[in-house]
Amino acid sequence: MNEIVTWTDTQLSRLKELEAGENDLICPCAAMEERNQCFQRIEKRLVKQQQQKLRQFLTVDLKPRLIELEERLTAVLNELGFSRVTTPVIISREALDRMTVDRDHPLSKQVYWLDDKHCLRPMLAPNLYQYMVSLGRLKARPIRFFEIGSCFRKESDGARHNSEFTMLNLVEMGVPMDQRQKRLKQLAKVVADAAGLKEYEFETEESVVYGETLDVVAGSDGIEVASGAMGPHPLDAAWRITDSWVGLGFGLERLVMVAQDSQSIGKWGKSVSWINGIRLNL
Amino acid sequence: MNEIVTWTDTQLSRLKELEAGENDLICPCAAMEERNQCFQRIEKRLVKQQQQKLRQFLTVDLKPRLIELEERLTAVLNELGFSRVTTPVIISREALDRMTVDRDHPLSKQVYWLDDKHCLRPMLAPNLYQYMVSLGRLKARPIRFFEIGSCFRKESDGARHNSEFTMLNLVEMGVPMDQRQKRLKQLAKVVADAAGLKEYEFETEESVVYGETLDVVAGSDGIEVASGAMGPHPLDAAWRITDSWVGLGFGLERLVMVAQDSQSIGKWGKSVSWINGIRLNL
Repeated sequence: MNEIVTWTDTQLSRLKELEAGENDLICPCAAMEERNQCFQRIEKRLVKQQQQKLRQFLTVDLKPRLIELEERLTAVLNELGFSRVTTPVIISREALDRMTVDRDHPLSKQVYWLDDKHCLRPMLAPNLYQYMVSLGRLKARPIRFFEIGSCFRKESDGARHNSEFTMLNLVEMGVPMDQRQKRLKQLAKVVADAAGLKEYEFETEESVVYGETLDVVAGSDGIEVASGAMGPHPLDAAWRITDSWVGLGFGLERLVMVAQDSQSIGKWGKSVSWINGIRLNL
Repeated sequence: MNEIVTWTDTQLSRLKELEAGENDLICPCAAMEERNQCFQRIEKRLVKQQQQKLRQFLTVDLKPRLIELEERLTAVLNELGFSRVTTPVIISREALDRMTVDRDHPLSKQVYWLDDKHCLRPMLAPNLYQYMVSLGRLKARPIRFFEIGSCFRKESDGARHNSEFTMLNLVEMGVPMDQRQKRLKQLAKVVADAAGLKEYEFETEESVVYGETLDVVAGSDGIEVASGAMGPHPLDAAWRITDSWVGLGFGLERLVMVAQDSQSIGKWGKSVSWINGIRLNL
């Protein structure tokens, strides 16, 4: 009877990053002493395939799906009367405190601090709240705006998280109270469709920051790709906001990952090791 | 004879941020006791004008010039065969050291550190050098790519600097040695034209990081809007790069400011106080 020969962990992870098919993930050798040679043969073939994809990116695709999605969402939301705003990633401790993310909050352990008073935003909401105040001074309603930008959280860089990730948050102020839930779902559908999601569901959830929220869950693994919120909301008081509003936040790398039916998020984000899902150390 | 009545510094700076014309910058009152009332009347009129501009932004323009420029440059450079890449803003001390920005370098005082080993990139170059290594493994030449993204430097937030600002860096590997200068100028012209610059000049300068560089200087004040570099270059050795190449870095907020014939940069950048040149505390 033959011995069962399996790849080493290092070989297996290299094959996975080279997008090996299921066949190549099972070592085909009959004997241990053939394994390394066998691995090199398969790796060489896969590297060639990835180089071909890289050449295709450099000559035909010319931009990553993440950027493509950003541009598409900007166009779609502009079309619906949402204005794009763009705000700094460095925010004050005070702005974060107003989100009730103070030193005792679980999220606070994930915040990157630059000094005692400044950090990298872990979410877009604090800056967008400031825009709600400024734009809310205008009398006309509705007021519609959104931001697409980087947020930062210390993560154990797992399959579902990057420490730098891209959020889309949109806000509509002046939505009639009884139409907020309906409007949230309409807007979630617009974004999900633009991102090319095929299947997704709405879920209601209790959030530490936002109270009750509407979540959008997608893909075969049921990943949360968006969170919705509505006001009047407990956090509004810190900004003296009295409007009725709806807001939605989407993780753009997650949208790309799910639309691509992919299992890992790192390869779709901002990276020096991956470009548009292709491993760079070829 | 009448006394000469002038605005207070606070009044003057408020009038400037409301884009007062030259007329309004001179106090029209004949007596000191009329000044505050007079200021309020003028401020009220200017606030109405800015509110009108804000409504126009929210209903017609729908995106800031900074974002518009980013999209236009992406389209123009894609058209010329440059691929867009997107990399993290958090970089390692080691990557910065390779740019020779070590603890003794003047720029090092402007770097935002997250911990002993990580900082916010003060420039795009370290990550793009890594891309030169990865993409350089492909045999085909030329290899063309660019990034548009935020960089960070501690600044005394003057009229010409934001602590978070947006850079475009482009790289072309495999340019024949004797055509590098010509190619740099071609590419600088493409970007300057896309940004709507009317007058600009090329200047050669000695840079602390890059050795001899080609600068692009524009506007009536002669502001540096771009820096070019070419390789083989002293820094290449740290990355074991032997290609001949050209590279250009543009400051996007500066391009917008100069194209708008504006004197202040903060109003065109990522901000919670300004959107697209319009003051938000109206």
